[in-house]
Amino acid sequence: MDKKVRGKTFIVAGPSGVGKGTILKKLFETHDLYYSVSATTRDPREGEVDGVHYHFLSVEEFRAMIAEDALLEHAEYAGNYYGTPKRYVDEAMDAGRDVILEIEMQGARQVCAKRPETIRIFIAPPSWEELERRLVNRGTDAPEKIAQRLRQARVELENAGEYDYMVVNETVEKAAEEVAAILCAEHCRVDGRLEEILKK
Amino acid sequence: MDKKVRGKTFIVAGPSGVGKGTILKKLFETHDLYYSVSATTRDPREGEVDGVHYHFLSVEEFRAMIAEDALLEHAEYAGNYYGTPKRYVDEAMDAGRDVILEIEMQGARQVCAKRPETIRIFIAPPSWEELERRLVNRGTDAPEKIAQRLRQARVELENAGEYDYMVVNETVEKAAEEVAAILCAEHCRVDGRLEEILKK
Repeated sequence: MDKKVRGKTFIVAGPSGVGKGTILKKLFETHDLYYSVSATTRDPREGEVDGVHYHFLSVEEFRAMIAEDALLEHAEYAGNYYGTPKRYVDEAMDAGRDVILEIEMQGARQVCAKRPETIRIFIAPPSWEELERRLVNRGTDAPEKIAQRLRQARVELENAGEYDYMVVNETVEKAAEEVAAILCAEHCRVDGRLEEILKK
Repeated sequence: MDKKVRGKTFIVAGPSGVGKGTILKKLFETHDLYYSVSATTRDPREGEVDGVHYHFLSVEEFRAMIAEDALLEHAEYAGNYYGTPKRYVDEAMDAGRDVILEIEMQGARQVCAKRPETIRIFIAPPSWEELERRLVNRGTDAPEKIAQRLRQARVELENAGEYDYMVVNETVEKAAEEVAAILCAEHCRVDGRLEEILKK
């Protein structure tokens, strides 16, 4: 891609267990994208690297970012702050890279309220039964946690109409190809292209 | 693709000499699409096959189709009628195939007035100079004809903002890939996907 063309921001959302991570991993094998790293006030876990897994901040630093409107979205969860710093997103786009925000529904709404041009992709399971099966087979969660994730998934699926695109994860390959096609097509949108041409 | 999913119609337009035919030929190598065959009242030329190059109709037959609203668009040019029959387009879409309409600006406007869901792709030259070069190097047209095509191209470029997408034909491979990505992405649009899921 012509590096002078500005990157775009894509939200990739969808219920827990739907396979977002696997699809994105596949996509990153062939595409030079910036995966947005969240900021958080929670303590680093063993092996977590600052700036790679999270930007680890103090509560004061995080609150200062909220006050300065330096976050695209943020939330408090289990007593800790989590959020998306604007800075790295903007730097990546300025450098011509597309940005992937893997965030949940509430975060997606905040981002789109601030930046309506953000493109929203919802990853859906092939069926409800398949999602249940995947969450159970993962074997990492207690039954009560699985039930909670399924309740949350139901809410997310009911609100999928808020998104621009829906990719059904039948196979990782096909889903990654579809996300790649969406990225490519969005760069062909006539408004942006006319702007690029006028800049030349 | 799941054959139960209905096909969509894509208009591919752009100035004469921009390379629409070459791009589409490349695209058809890998995609099972229906290339809409126009109806016309002009006489078949040597080697032209009815139903392949055109649907050859009498003036009475063509006028009857206009009266029955059986055409997506039509025009009169040099004393002959040309138009796009609805029937084959609809049959292809019902069978789950996407349809390509290679038509000019006025025709594109008529189609979109009747069917606003039609997706419009404009193929643009990398530069004005390149378009001039291609038209001259083709060697098939007299200078006056080339000048006329360039005037028409100027009008089409000025109205490119009417389209949904713009694909710049820098290389045939890249342009065909971008058109393919647009087709794929349009099938991921959330409205259509939610409809598909509800039908299941």
